[in-house]
Amino acid sequence: MILVMKEHTDKAQIENLITWLKTQGVETHLSEGKFQTILGLVGDTSKVDADLLEGLDIVESVKRIQEPFKNANRKFHPDDTVIDIGGNKIGGGNFQVIAGPCSVESEEQICTIAMEVKKAGATMLRGGAFKPRTSPYAFQGLRDEGLKLLLKAKEYSGLPIVTEIMDASHLPLFEDVDVIQVGARNMQNFELLKELGHIRKPILLKRGLANTIQELLMSAEYIMAGGNEQVILCERGIRTFETYTRNTLDISAVPIIKELSHLPIIIDPSHSTGMARMVRPMSLAAAAAGADGLIIEVHNDPQHALCDGPQSITPAAFADLMQDLNSILDVVKKK
Amino acid sequence: MILVMKEHTDKAQIENLITWLKTQGVETHLSEGKFQTILGLVGDTSKVDADLLEGLDIVESVKRIQEPFKNANRKFHPDDTVIDIGGNKIGGGNFQVIAGPCSVESEEQICTIAMEVKKAGATMLRGGAFKPRTSPYAFQGLRDEGLKLLLKAKEYSGLPIVTEIMDASHLPLFEDVDVIQVGARNMQNFELLKELGHIRKPILLKRGLANTIQELLMSAEYIMAGGNEQVILCERGIRTFETYTRNTLDISAVPIIKELSHLPIIIDPSHSTGMARMVRPMSLAAAAAGADGLIIEVHNDPQHALCDGPQSITPAAFADLMQDLNSILDVVKKK
Amino acid sequence: MILVMKEHTDKAQIENLITWLKTQGVETHLSEGKFQTILGLVGDTSKVDADLLEGLDIVESVKRIQEPFKNANRKFHPDDTVIDIGGNKIGGGNFQVIAGPCSVESEEQICTIAMEVKKAGATMLRGGAFKPRTSPYAFQGLRDEGLKLLLKAKEYSGLPIVTEIMDASHLPLFEDVDVIQVGARNMQNFELLKELGHIRKPILLKRGLANTIQELLMSAEYIMAGGNEQVILCERGIRTFETYTRNTLDISAVPIIKELSHLPIIIDPSHSTGMARMVRPMSLAAAAAGADGLIIEVHNDPQHALCDGPQSITPAAFADLMQDLNSILDVVKKK
Amino acid sequence: MILVMKEHTDKAQIENLITWLKTQGVETHLSEGKFQTILGLVGDTSKVDADLLEGLDIVESVKRIQEPFKNANRKFHPDDTVIDIGGNKIGGGNFQVIAGPCSVESEEQICTIAMEVKKAGATMLRGGAFKPRTSPYAFQGLRDEGLKLLLKAKEYSGLPIVTEIMDASHLPLFEDVDVIQVGARNMQNFELLKELGHIRKPILLKRGLANTIQELLMSAEYIMAGGNEQVILCERGIRTFETYTRNTLDISAVPIIKELSHLPIIIDPSHSTGMARMVRPMSLAAAAAGADGLIIEVHNDPQHALCDGPQSITPAAFADLMQDLNSILDVVKKK
Repeated sequence: MILVMKEHTDKAQIENLITWLKTQGVETHLSEGKFQTILGLVGDTSKVDADLLEGLDIVESVKRIQEPFKNANRKFHPDDTVIDIGGNKIGGGNFQVIAGPCSVESEEQICTIAMEVKKAGATMLRGGAFKPRTSPYAFQGLRDEGLKLLLKAKEYSGLPIVTEIMDASHLPLFEDVDVIQVGARNMQNFELLKELGHIRKPILLKRGLANTIQELLMSAEYIMAGGNEQVILCERGIRTFETYTRNTLDISAVPIIKELSHLPIIIDPSHSTGMARMVRPMSLAAAAAGADGLIIEVHNDPQHALCDGPQSITPAAFADLMQDLNSILDVVKKK
Repeated sequence: MILVMKEHTDKAQIENLITWLKTQGVETHLSEGKFQTILGLVGDTSKVDADLLEGLDIVESVKRIQEPFKNANRKFHPDDTVIDIGGNKIGGGNFQVIAGPCSVESEEQICTIAMEVKKAGATMLRGGAFKPRTSPYAFQGLRDEGLKLLLKAKEYSGLPIVTEIMDASHLPLFEDVDVIQVGARNMQNFELLKELGHIRKPILLKRGLANTIQELLMSAEYIMAGGNEQVILCERGIRTFETYTRNTLDISAVPIIKELSHLPIIIDPSHSTGMARMVRPMSLAAAAAGADGLIIEVHNDPQHALCDGPQSITPAAFADLMQDLNSILDVVKKK
Repeated sequence: MILVMKEHTDKAQIENLITWLKTQGVETHLSEGKFQTILGLVGDTSKVDADLLEGLDIVESVKRIQEPFKNANRKFHPDDTVIDIGGNKIGGGNFQVIAGPCSVESEEQICTIAMEVKKAGATMLRGGAFKPRTSPYAFQGLRDEGLKLLLKAKEYSGLPIVTEIMDASHLPLFEDVDVIQVGARNMQNFELLKELGHIRKPILLKRGLANTIQELLMSAEYIMAGGNEQVILCERGIRTFETYTRNTLDISAVPIIKELSHLPIIIDPSHSTGMARMVRPMSLAAAAAGADGLIIEVHNDPQHALCDGPQSITPAAFADLMQDLNSILDVVKKK
Repeated sequence: MILVMKEHTDKAQIENLITWLKTQGVETHLSEGKFQTILGLVGDTSKVDADLLEGLDIVESVKRIQEPFKNANRKFHPDDTVIDIGGNKIGGGNFQVIAGPCSVESEEQICTIAMEVKKAGATMLRGGAFKPRTSPYAFQGLRDEGLKLLLKAKEYSGLPIVTEIMDASHLPLFEDVDVIQVGARNMQNFELLKELGHIRKPILLKRGLANTIQELLMSAEYIMAGGNEQVILCERGIRTFETYTRNTLDISAVPIIKELSHLPIIIDPSHSTGMARMVRPMSLAAAAAGADGLIIEVHNDPQHALCDGPQSITPAAFADLMQDLNSILDVVKKK
């Protein structure tokens, strides 16, 4: 971290600051130029509050050189994190496909889809029980009832399950869920993140619609700071001025996150574009870019889905996609 | 709502849809053109799930004509909502200024500031007890302890208090709080919004960084659908490509919200720009544009604020601003 | 196009509008509902000025159903356009790689790179002679001198050349250039587009940083309306709130443009991210998503490039990339 | 400018860089920390090419401290620039209102509006002769014929005229125009900016839809570097995810530009929102925020405007606005 000091700053004040920083475990290096005085902070500055320093009246600006996250940082953890979910490994060269319907609707629906996606090669089942909807009048999911149906489908198909949590108070219901998903709108629900730091279960953390890659990693840091190191990141499209797609899928986030962090990163091609016909090209692109997995909406009857119908593909289309996906994974040497 | 039907759609299928819509309380009007068949939905379509219709295989696209919110909609409630907070009215030509520090730090701090902002003309006191911070290592607020100090300042100064809630489970702590604030990052924390719909206390709902005006009104609708009609909206800057300011304050949201809704709308000039020196021009601009109030960060010692220091102004600067603000309010006929 | 009429509109006024639309070659279909009167425009509305209609005092809103472009529209031209550049076909299943330095610097430099990229599999040479730079103090390119060197490299290597034009008055200098590039900042320089419509040479049209896919197609329409049908579109990143990459590469634009238009669409992985190490993953992703080609910056000595150094890869890295690229192209059945 | 050097960089290479920088007139200050070696550049670095330095293999990152513009920079020119246009001063506490129709349509139209806006208090007349339109099929303006009519209105009303140029080759036609406008889409048409640097006439430079404040100032720098110091900046809305307004008017750009630059800055409330009913609140807000002027679309018959009808107000509404505007100007002490 570099502090650019204001012109004509009193030397004594700078000395006070240096002393205070020392008490915070941070060493400093002062460079007094003719035009500018610069204070370099050395050591581990990932936990230094830059806002606080920027508020000091002797500081003109603060420039971070080191990233403000540590547990999620590849610099401090060079090897890829590999997370094992019921025997399916993700990260470190292992690619997994999570598939299933937007919403759990009935036992028959979820069990049928589970078997179909399993047959096509999916290794985990997704399904929404608690559904975040923009409108209070839209279908909100079957909630606890939906969770029960999902657990039945897990038993029936043998697939581990992934489903979204919307409030920390629901945690007891998620005991048998294999991966707990934090949706885009809750990426900065810090009270929820803190709670998820105290459990020992993989968390699928989706990037918020208007959140930077660094903020995504800071939210992962919230979970990891609590002791839960099993975080799977997920890019699912960001909000831009383009209106043709629902959101703009930021595939470049994949290689960047791989560089900055050791955590696995997967792509959601369904929610990002909001169009079933974009799932295939975006899935192949994600695999080619180096993603560690995909989470895809598949519906046995896309015409009657209770929510997000336009973005779900059929099991047949999913099976077809899996074939080309495997060819792409060969090229980029993933399994 | 207009449904553009796909070409060559079977008549019987359209008839089925029309029948089903009737059961939902929606009348239809079919217009068969040479090139396009269009189904117009008439009546109250604010509760119709557009996603569901878009998922049908006979529908090419759905175009909303009516807004998808009702309780918050000016069309159904032409008069301005006026909310009374301890005798201070907001909305319907009444302008209020909420002021106070970013974080509550100590009894002395919060009581001193309360008296200073009151003297300068503020009618409500703000102060953060629960603080949403991007980093898990940054100061998270004094939490319940902070709430107690805020209540002491309320007693001491006589000012009603406004403070942020971060999780529905904290609600019992907010019993004596006058206005509960929902922060930008929680604007779509739907479980929290639902809980706030069940209480009878004014809610200050901040627009999310990447949320549209319509989504803000849909979140207000969540609260109002639960029976709590006292919602104050707050524009606090949106995320854009511009990096000079922290966010881009969307002042045009004020007249637009006034047109679409009867709810009061205020501006936060402190968080939006992130710079103390922008508070004054943005406050005057907000008043000139027709806002119903302001929420301003004021700190007796901006250099030592524990968070968000750069955006707080001094009590002296605040008092100075209040004078010009009153002159602007005269021009736009607010009191 | 659908016109939603204002409530209580005089019938005679609507009749006048219908009559006027008929003179514009547009048929109408009136649908009078209890709550809403809707006027559907049928026939070719791609040339109807929606702004003009929206300005009429009897019209509440205008909703386009048909796209406002025609020559570039796949609906009117279902087969892929295939453009032949010195024997290299692009579009319709044909994939081409354009490579070369950001700026032409010397005869030796451009000729050396030309031979290196040719050897690795590039089929066209790019190189900047006229350089758009944000700062008037930055290197502006060798201009006409650069064009001459590029033509020498064309002669020497046998590769067709692609280079950017910045002003219509420079057109005479581009007579022997094979593909004329319009940069992102000039995508809506309509006077330039009109001039390029009058020549008979392929145009590489880059998407502007803040332009929608539809606006890109409208700019292609400007060129095609002049009679020049050889337009190659290029996605090169859009401006978003994310600051880690220079721009956000919108790979989903590829399948969308393929759906909307018959024109070839290529990707620029170098300018979009601004980082050499992102070129490889983004190139593979683009190919997997169905792009018709790539335009890649390659520099024999990235450390001494006069501009845009950080985004250029070495010829060795380029050759390496070409191998995996070919494997991906096999999967998506491109040649 | 601060260069963060890569770890383990050879000392000799750093010495070479220091020597080379000296030849560019830049002094350096080396600070070798235990973890990081930093090279501070002192002196005037506004003309140093940061991209070039970032491309060097010994440099990890470059952080600018000084702005990359000089002629437009308030640091080098503390007093406000005041521009005199036919006796009307703008900047330095002087506020001017430019008004007129989107497009010049006929002699009668432009002369009538000129007299009406003059009577209401406008001091300059705007009117489009060359019109940039997204669609090649939309009305493109009367072009040279329009310019002639505008000059007639100037003679008739005595008002100086402001009109847009779209290509440097049209410059001879603009000899009697008082202020030449560069539209948002041409803000980075650098060839045009260079030409405008060689004339001696005020330039009204509009901010591009996706351009930062710094890029706007860099484009002003292009004009000023050519010797033309009379640049008036104009904020006219930026492109964001919000779709309710055409663009998002960034009013905070006003105080920021005032801080960074000595050039006058005005606001265009008409194009930014695209709605006539937003002109009044946004004009008052702009004045309250400290703008030096406004450019407003006024049309004697908004229903029949050939373009951009929805955003033009009537002369009566304009006259009404001028009254409240003057009251606001009194508060902020402008004349």
